Amino acid sequence: MIHLVLLSGGSGKRLWPLSNDARSKQFLKVLRDEAGNHVSMVQRVFAQIGRVPAELDVTIATGGAQEGSIRAQLPEGGYELVLEPERRDTAPAIMLACAHLSMQQGAGDGDTVVVMPIDTFADQAYYDKVPQLDAAVRSGVADLVLLGVRPTYPSEKYGYIVPNGGATGDGPMGVARFTEKPSGDEAEALIAQGALWNCGVFAFRLGYLMGLLEGYTDTNAYSELVERYAELPKISFDYEVVERARRVAVIPYSGTWKDLGTWNTLTDEMADRYAGRVVVDEATCDNVHVVNETGFPMVVAGLADAVVVATPDGILVTGKEASAHIKPQVEQAAASRPMYEQRRWGEYRVLDASVFPDGAKALTKELIIKAGQQLSYQRHARRSEFWTIVSGRGQVVLDGLAQDVRAGSAIKILAGVLHAARAQEDLHVIEVQVGDILVEEDIERFGDYWEAGR
Amino acid sequence: MIHLVLLSGGSGKRLWPLSNDARSKQFLKVLRDEAGNHVSMVQRVFAQIGRVPAELDVTIATGGAQEGSIRAQLPEGGYELVLEPERRDTAPAIMLACAHLSMQQGAGDGDTVVVMPIDTFADQAYYDKVPQLDAAVRSGVADLVLLGVRPTYPSEKYGYIVPNGGATGDGPMGVARFTEKPSGDEAEALIAQGALWNCGVFAFRLGYLMGLLEGYTDTNAYSELVERYAELPKISFDYEVVERARRVAVIPYSGTWKDLGTWNTLTDEMADRYAGRVVVDEATCDNVHVVNETGFPMVVAGLADAVVVATPDGILVTGKEASAHIKPQVEQAAASRPMYEQRRWGEYRVLDASVFPDGAKALTKELIIKAGQQLSYQRHARRSEFWTIVSGRGQVVLDGLAQDVRAGSAIKILAGVLHAARAQEDLHVIEVQVGDILVEEDIERFGDYWEAGR
Repeated sequence: MIHLVLLSGGSGKRLWPLSNDARSKQFLKVLRDEAGNHVSMVQRVFAQIGRVPAELDVTIATGGAQEGSIRAQLPEGGYELVLEPERRDTAPAIMLACAHLSMQQGAGDGDTVVVMPIDTFADQAYYDKVPQLDAAVRSGVADLVLLGVRPTYPSEKYGYIVPNGGATGDGPMGVARFTEKPSGDEAEALIAQGALWNCGVFAFRLGYLMGLLEGYTDTNAYSELVERYAELPKISFDYEVVERARRVAVIPYSGTWKDLGTWNTLTDEMADRYAGRVVVDEATCDNVHVVNETGFPMVVAGLADAVVVATPDGILVTGKEASAHIKPQVEQAAASRPMYEQRRWGEYRVLDASVFPDGAKALTKELIIKAGQQLSYQRHARRSEFWTIVSGRGQVVLDGLAQDVRAGSAIKILAGVLHAARAQEDLHVIEVQVGDILVEEDIERFGDYWEAGR
Repeated sequence: MIHLVLLSGGSGKRLWPLSNDARSKQFLKVLRDEAGNHVSMVQRVFAQIGRVPAELDVTIATGGAQEGSIRAQLPEGGYELVLEPERRDTAPAIMLACAHLSMQQGAGDGDTVVVMPIDTFADQAYYDKVPQLDAAVRSGVADLVLLGVRPTYPSEKYGYIVPNGGATGDGPMGVARFTEKPSGDEAEALIAQGALWNCGVFAFRLGYLMGLLEGYTDTNAYSELVERYAELPKISFDYEVVERARRVAVIPYSGTWKDLGTWNTLTDEMADRYAGRVVVDEATCDNVHVVNETGFPMVVAGLADAVVVATPDGILVTGKEASAHIKPQVEQAAASRPMYEQRRWGEYRVLDASVFPDGAKALTKELIIKAGQQLSYQRHARRSEFWTIVSGRGQVVLDGLAQDVRAGSAIKILAGVLHAARAQEDLHVIEVQVGDILVEEDIERFGDYWEAGR
């Protein structure tokens, strides 16, 4: 049995304002699948994995902020979800996922684990390397077997894996050393030696990793490991495990492999040049990509080699070349909170946020609670919420008293009042929050009020 | 006595999304006065008129849509406001203003009227021509005395006034003929003949115009003229009066005179290159103007010779050269209703508009009712309104019952219910409208509920 562990991380300021802390780049539905549907990187990778000719199961390791997006985008039951109690780094995340496999999913020490990033853009052939990685691990050729991408240019941004001898064949080769972000000249020399790009794919026996885990913790209970997650070192798997391993091998892969983490690379693969409510003057625009996820109408004219993106998180207008270097500007401009988020129960979008001279604050949101879904029973200490139902049908509970709601219902939820809501038909709510502190964290949850599926 | 009539028209799609039907370009506070304050064209012109060395009063002729903006921007008591019952054209607008002067303001037939557009960008010397226009009218040199701008280039877009002989002096000259929008070659020939640009400034004896008015209507009552305004011809003053007049003279003006009606010309005079919530990467931007009136953070990088404007009405990203030709795109993109408007009582901003599959609609607005101001007593037939007060203090009346409101008050105004509101302190309201037809026109007004100033 092969256990595939997909790491879903990243906060993605580089693709602001399309990505935010809750919506990393891998969830953006900007690609197109073979049937012509819009898909995200996560959905594309999941489909590619489904075509790998091998028996495998999938575990996704991620933080709580991404749970809603993953559940919204991937088919239920198709994967196990391992939620990191806090974001640390890839070494503890992989250890946690392996502990989950071993202690919760009943995986055996002799089983192969293949770890992959979930946000890779590659050919099917890349994923079809999984059985070969598994075979190499089972053959005992090394403790760790990596996938290495044949470089297409002397990049200064990637890590290089330098094999023993020179990587000419297709099979596993021993690894001599690793080099991070070399200069251009060094990169050329490395490529001449047969070095490969490190693409973050690691294969090993589950028992090997569980043995290493014993060096960090003495627990055998998964729940205890979750509780003591903060004790694991905050470091990457590359530094903590790979570079210290005695026997490492690498299998080469030749083909498309991209990080779609910059506007330049992402727009090359985008399904549509223009998405959302926008009118582009084609006659005066050249190599322009536009995404408008706001309700505002947009006109774009007289631009070349540029990206225009508007979402509830912000508005970016940038030349494509300049887009690689705008991190400082984005950090200065961006709001401290996500303005759009997919959740287990639906989604929300911030419409307006105001701070008044007396320190009072107001935040207006649109909530969409999907039919059949519910908001957990909850209360807020520092804010009151005023709801106007503008479409749909459902129930709202206030301190144990339920009422039916539909378009035109108005609900006043004072600070401290327990409340829940569920939708029979998609429930659109305009919520006005009033209080002195308006943050997502001001919430005390008491589970679900209604049984699921009722 | 000189009566200055300022015509305030224009719907201004050319400066979309900064201007809309309610906020024409003349109300945009993008210029700077001598004291360094941000002022609009209207405010700049009003200040320039105040410096003219002559005794004059000001009448502003406009449509109802601009009343709120004018009252918000100009000092109370500094002008008379003549509201056109409907937008027709400059001939009926000038006739109405003159009738108001004659029948309501007690102006005499011998008084001089000088008509000027309110949205001109010119030097003080331009306005200082008013006494000279008055002197020419009083001298009887002609029935109509125009101001003509000495051309600085052979424009194909303007109308030309061709004087008798050749305009060499500074005094009034007889006019031989008018030519609209000549070709470049024709324009050069006209300029060689001493032709001047027609800048829409007309001076005449009030009695002359009132005599002409008798040809259109037999009423002597201003209120009756207002009622029968639709009977006046929908045509420009140039065509209907100037080109038919027997004795027309022109006084030349040399100096700055601009139509700031395109992004190219407006940005040349703008007080700030960047306004609103925006971070511009100066190192990679050249000749870029940015206005962000939304609450969304904005980042601009890697652009040259471009304008980026975001308002509740929409988002425009355009090269400056292309900006002159985007009318079709703007007409295709722009919303059919203003998303931001200044009113007598304050202002509103549309935050969100949704249409649901069952035909129901929802519109979320922020209202700011200024301290001391009130919304008229009113009701709506097709929509309910749900208010959440997020800041300030005031009263709301529902069907004759008044209540005090403050931050945290929630008010439900069902369709058909009479309501009014007034503010003791600036009252910020989030209003959610729900109904099948959501338009500003669905309103029945019953005057003010409270006496003014109480």
